[in-house]
Order: sequence, then structure tokens, then C-alpha cells
Amino acid sequence: MSLPWEQRFSKRAQHVKGSAVRELLKITEQPEFISFGGGLPAPDVFPVDAVARAAEHVLSTNAAYALQYSTTEGYRPLRRWIAEKLSRDNLALSEENILITSGSQQALDLIGKLLIDPDDQVVVESPTYLATLQCWRTYGARFLECPADDDGFITGALPSLLVSNPKLMYSVPNFQNPRGVTLSLPRRRDLVSLLREFDVPLIEDDPYGELRFEGQHLPSLMAIDGSRRAHKVYNGLVIGLGSFSKVLAPGLRVGWVAAAPSVIEKLVLVKQGTDLHTATFNQMIVHHLAESGIMESHRRLIIEAYRARRDVMLEALAREMPQGVTWTRPQGGMFLWVTLPSDVDAADVLPLALERKVAFVCGAPFHAGGGGKNTMRLNFSNATFDKIREGIHRLGEAVRLVLASHPAAAA
Amino acid sequence: MSLPWEQRFSKRAQHVKGSAVRELLKITEQPEFISFGGGLPAPDVFPVDAVARAAEHVLSTNAAYALQYSTTEGYRPLRRWIAEKLSRDNLALSEENILITSGSQQALDLIGKLLIDPDDQVVVESPTYLATLQCWRTYGARFLECPADDDGFITGALPSLLVSNPKLMYSVPNFQNPRGVTLSLPRRRDLVSLLREFDVPLIEDDPYGELRFEGQHLPSLMAIDGSRRAHKVYNGLVIGLGSFSKVLAPGLRVGWVAAAPSVIEKLVLVKQGTDLHTATFNQMIVHHLAESGIMESHRRLIIEAYRARRDVMLEALAREMPQGVTWTRPQGGMFLWVTLPSDVDAADVLPLALERKVAFVCGAPFHAGGGGKNTMRLNFSNATFDKIREGIHRLGEAVRLVLASHPAAAA
Repeated sequence: MSLPWEQRFSKRAQHVKGSAVRELLKITEQPEFISFGGGLPAPDVFPVDAVARAAEHVLSTNAAYALQYSTTEGYRPLRRWIAEKLSRDNLALSEENILITSGSQQALDLIGKLLIDPDDQVVVESPTYLATLQCWRTYGARFLECPADDDGFITGALPSLLVSNPKLMYSVPNFQNPRGVTLSLPRRRDLVSLLREFDVPLIEDDPYGELRFEGQHLPSLMAIDGSRRAHKVYNGLVIGLGSFSKVLAPGLRVGWVAAAPSVIEKLVLVKQGTDLHTATFNQMIVHHLAESGIMESHRRLIIEAYRARRDVMLEALAREMPQGVTWTRPQGGMFLWVTLPSDVDAADVLPLALERKVAFVCGAPFHAGGGGKNTMRLNFSNATFDKIREGIHRLGEAVRLVLASHPAAAA
Repeated sequence: MSLPWEQRFSKRAQHVKGSAVRELLKITEQPEFISFGGGLPAPDVFPVDAVARAAEHVLSTNAAYALQYSTTEGYRPLRRWIAEKLSRDNLALSEENILITSGSQQALDLIGKLLIDPDDQVVVESPTYLATLQCWRTYGARFLECPADDDGFITGALPSLLVSNPKLMYSVPNFQNPRGVTLSLPRRRDLVSLLREFDVPLIEDDPYGELRFEGQHLPSLMAIDGSRRAHKVYNGLVIGLGSFSKVLAPGLRVGWVAAAPSVIEKLVLVKQGTDLHTATFNQMIVHHLAESGIMESHRRLIIEAYRARRDVMLEALAREMPQGVTWTRPQGGMFLWVTLPSDVDAADVLPLALERKVAFVCGAPFHAGGGGKNTMRLNFSNATFDKIREGIHRLGEAVRLVLASHPAAAA
């Protein structure tokens, strides 16, 4: 008799669990579904013609390069473009600070591989990005949760976590996934002081930073750290992650890591064994769209579209949600966060919502320690105005039903 | 003082070393260099116009899908096409047997993550594909070397290795990288009997199988295993890896894993945390080229081109190499293997070759246990006829110089 495959899997693989978000995506692929569950950009604002022209340009000018094996570091002009773009707010980066990755998710995985030994502690905002928790758990990470409010990480709570000598900190500072909140400037300064004082590296994951609808641009944690350092080339404790998935299109799978050259050099070797390099054709398409300014004008279009959708969702929530339910008001990005009364479980709302063909993601899995049962994440970027209004109407119905059947609510 | 980054890297990352092949690639990027060092397909036979038309077709018919996030399993029509293509020689595969990967290298990495615990033993041909050794070493694999000859794996030597209960076997059965040799049909049958007897999974890495110049097609190890199983959907011990890098273009980064559904299901979860999914745009381009028959006609073109280059290299070797030097005569693929007299070190030839602006890769790193100092791998697919002739002339000069300075040769 042959051993079942399950018994052959590595101990590491036992930690690998399916993502509730991605499982939900399959259910909600049915066309009549209104999904606030995924993190999908709006397909109606994809720059289709521009991508087609860029692909044609790349193949007609440099096909032999676009279609061949290439260096692991990535397409040099794209690395240079990213370095220049990030060089603001007194931060100076060069191409040696940049590695191109197959989307931001790969950057998270490479960093886990590079830095996390089993039982290493990682400080995260609570709640935080679910896929980071899942990815780093496979490398044996243990998470220390730092409380957060509408200004992000409560940095005053950090020193008591940092004394236990964590390996890393992780933050999504702009329009955070899942809550949509943004780390305030004083907190950013605090956080950078703390990482220097305790000598702990910080992963700054910023896929949404370019999608600011309102309010003032805030300097990145890397920029704040860099402006305090004497080095000409950034050589500090912040590792930045970025992506073209939100400002162009996720289907191209192009992201990047920005970090000290000694980190990039080693990450290059790690990536070499992981997938050799990111598709050169895709990198060149992205570079053409970035260099030509098409991406920037497209970004403004996306911002207008998402701002309007956020507004429609906020109005609908105000209209449809019963008392005792609250939500965040993001200044950008793709998500907002709904909090039900503390004794109500969002998992009880989900089946009633799915019955009504509307989907969301429960907030609990975004909490490393398992809290947040009364929370839910809503994506506002993917659905049209009418679907947002109709979906929030159905969701309000589901929430009211659960509240009505609830002992505290009934009392 | 800040801790140096090197001291923050994980134990796992300490095993990650640069690839000699990829380092060499950088040196030999200089245009006057003739490189037999890389494993690059010939850029002059890339199907540039066909890729351009396919990209246009994909974006004009289904851009919203091509540019959006997608399922980790891969583009369903491409999975189905691969399953049908592999269903020959009495093997039946369905799309549940297929996962699309970002090139074959990612498949190797995902399989390492899924199956290899620290100190697990893996049986490999000696020599074997360098990048597999490097990739799986980061997961803690220890390699057991099985001797090989011009018919591949000497399967008679396997039982004495298999009694020590290895986790996996690994083979490149067709036009192997590095030696260019092909596993004979009796050895294939032996190997499959042995993996069933000892209940050990086998990774069948086949990036070159489609590039057969002459001789008869041989059934894959999966097909031999599958034809002896009663299941309708393949559910056996062979995990097959394939790639479009050699028959289309590596810059697209599209490969696949074919395996039992329970392996694919778990690999999907592992890949989810690694890069979410392979670029949908690229998968759809590949599917269009495959479905329309363009890939098949292109494959015939490549075979003609590589066969001719192989012949030119074999003639040049016969003309230029001194007595005592031997080489393989591959029936397909991209590489051949040169053996110098047993007491001569190829590492002594390399600097003299680089001085003469010709590059090759030393054979020693392809040996898990460090043997093969007197061997070298030559790639014949990338250079033109004239460059092959000139490069082998220069290489012959370097070899003769080392032999002449050698005590045994001088005696």
C-alpha cells in the first residue's frame, strides 16, 4: 500500500492553510453575487489600450530581451525608475536599493525566507494583512499584536513589545488592509525612533499609498529613517514593499522591494532559487507605462473612481446600518472596516449575507491572536455604484437580523 | 550601533548561495564574448510576431480577465490544454492534475517547500541539475547520488540507495541538464518499478522533452506509472514538471506541475502564499499560441535550429579537442558534456578560456557530492554557427594548454 500524500508533506507545509478570502472569491465568482469580499481593483478602469500599445512597443523594439531569461534583480530601467520615484522627502535611493518581484506577495515570501527562523517574534498592527500572517507562519513566525486605532499603530504600546527582542516589525501605513486607516505623522516619527532605539527592522508594506483621495501625503517610514541617516545610498532598517497591481493591473504581477543594498543582494539570491526572475516582458510593459506618464494619468482616473465608490459606500452604510454599528472613513485605498456591537459575531452575519448573494470577509482572521470577532472588512473598489447600494442594503438586512436575534439586542 | 544585516538573516538563508552559472552570465554579457555557459534559448528563433499578435488578441477579447487577480491554480483553458497534451502513452490527466507555475524553477521551489523537511534524503542522478540542488538545499535536503551513464540513471544502483528510505527521487529523463543524455526505456521501466516497490515519489523534470532532434519518443515516467494504475485520474507517485520556456520563450515565465490531485491541492495553497498566481496575461498568451497550433510549428523550427547547432559543435569538438577528451552526443535539448582526462581540472581551463573570451560551466557543482572536477557543460543552442566554431577553437586551445602543462600529459 502506498502512503497517503498528506503523510509525506513537510512540517512546514502543515502550517499552510487556505485563505478564507480566496475561498470566498470562488463562491462569489457567480455573476449575480455582489462581493465586497475580495481586494480586487475595478476592471473597468484597467488601462487596456495602453497595456496593448506598451506590449506592442516592447516587442517591436526589444523582443530578444523581453522574451529571454534575464537577471534576477529585474529590468534595470524599471529599478532605476522606482528608485527615482521613491527618492523624495529627503530619501535618496539608487537601483542597488531595488529588487523587482512577482507582485508584493512574493516580496513578503522572500522576506520571510530571508529573515524568519522558527519561533522568531514579529510585531504587527492588530488587525493586520491576513496574507502576511499566513505567509510568515509557514516560516515559523510568532506574532506580537500591537493595538491600533484610527491613526494606526498605537506606538506608545510598542516599547513593552520591543523589549522582548522581536526579529521584525510589520506595518501597512497607508489606507491599511484591512481597516483602511493611515498611520499619522507623529506616530510615524515615533515608530522610526523606536525601531532605531531597539534596532529592529521594519517591513513597510505600501500597496495602496498611491491611491490617496484626500488629505496630505505623508512621508514613508523609509523616508523618515533615511532623512536621519548620513549614507548617500539608503542603508537603514526599513524594508519597503510596493506594487503596480493597484495603479496598473494585478494580472501583470510586478512589485518591488526597496531596502539596504546588503538586503537586496541576499534577496536576489533567495529569489534566484524561487523563480529565477520576474517575467521580463511584464517588467518592460510596466516600465513603458511608467516612463511615458501614462501610469500617472491613469492613477488620477483610479483615484476619482475609487473616491466616488467609497463615498457611495459610506452613504449607504449610514442609511442601511442599524445603531451600534460603526465603520472607518478611509482617505484612500480599497477597504473600510465595520465594527458590530462587541458581543455580535460577524461569522453569524456571513451565512445570512451569502444567502442574500452579498459577500464580505470576517475580521477575525486578520487578528494574529484571534480577536475581532465583531468586525468585517468591506472592499469598495470593485463594484459599481448600484451594486454597492444594493449590496449594502442586503448586508444591512443581514446585520439587523442577527442583531434582532441576539440576546443583548433583544434585552 | 546597528547589528549588520548578515547577522539578521535566517539559518535557512545561510544555505542560499549564488549560482556560478548566473554569475558567469554577467561576465559573458559583454558582446565580444562567446558563451557556452548559460542555458539560453536562441533569441533569433523567438516567435516575436506571434507573441505580439497573441498579446493583442488576449487584450482585445478578454482584458478584464487577463489583467485582474486570478485563481492560484492557473488559467483553466491552459490547464486543460496541458492535461490533454500530457494524456498520451496510456496516461489520462485532467485539469485537476495541473498547476500553472511561474516557470519550472518555481515548481522546484514549491515542491521543496511542500515535501522536504531538514535532513530528508533525496536521490539524484550524478551529475544533476544545479539549480535543483541549490533550491532544495535551502529546505535542508541531503542528496544521495546515483551513478549515471549514457543511458541516464544506472537503475541497478538504486536499491542500495532506496533502502535508506529517501523522501524523494529526482530525474531529468530527456536530454538531461547537464549531460544531455536520455534515460533509456528499460531503465525507465526499472525506475518506475522501483519507486512503486519502495513507495518513493519521483520528480520528473522535463523542460527539454519537446526538443527531440532524432531517435524515438520515449514515454514519460508518469505515463509508465499511470498506465499501470487503475485510477481514471492520475493519482500516482510521479510529479511532473514542464515549461514553455524552451518551446516558446523563457521571458514569459510560464511552467507547470502535473501530479495527483491531492498534491496539486496542497501545492495551490503553498503557491498562494508565495506569489498568489502566475501572471494571467502571460498564461493567456501561452494558451493562445498553444491552442492555435503556432507553438507546434514553432517547435519544429527550434528543433531544426538546435539540431544544426549541435552538429556544428560536435564537428568542431572532433576537430579541436586533443586526444583523451570525450563528449556526449545528445539526441535533443540544449547541452552537451565534455570529459577531460581524469586528473585534469576544468577549473584550470576556465581562466584560460575566459582570457580568450569564451565561457563554459565547470561540471563539479552539478555533482551533489563534489566529484566531476574533470567535466564541463557546453550549451549549443544560443550561439550562431560561426561563433560555435570560433568558440570551440578557442576552448580547444585552452584545453591543450592545460593538458600540456599537466604532469601526466607531459610525462
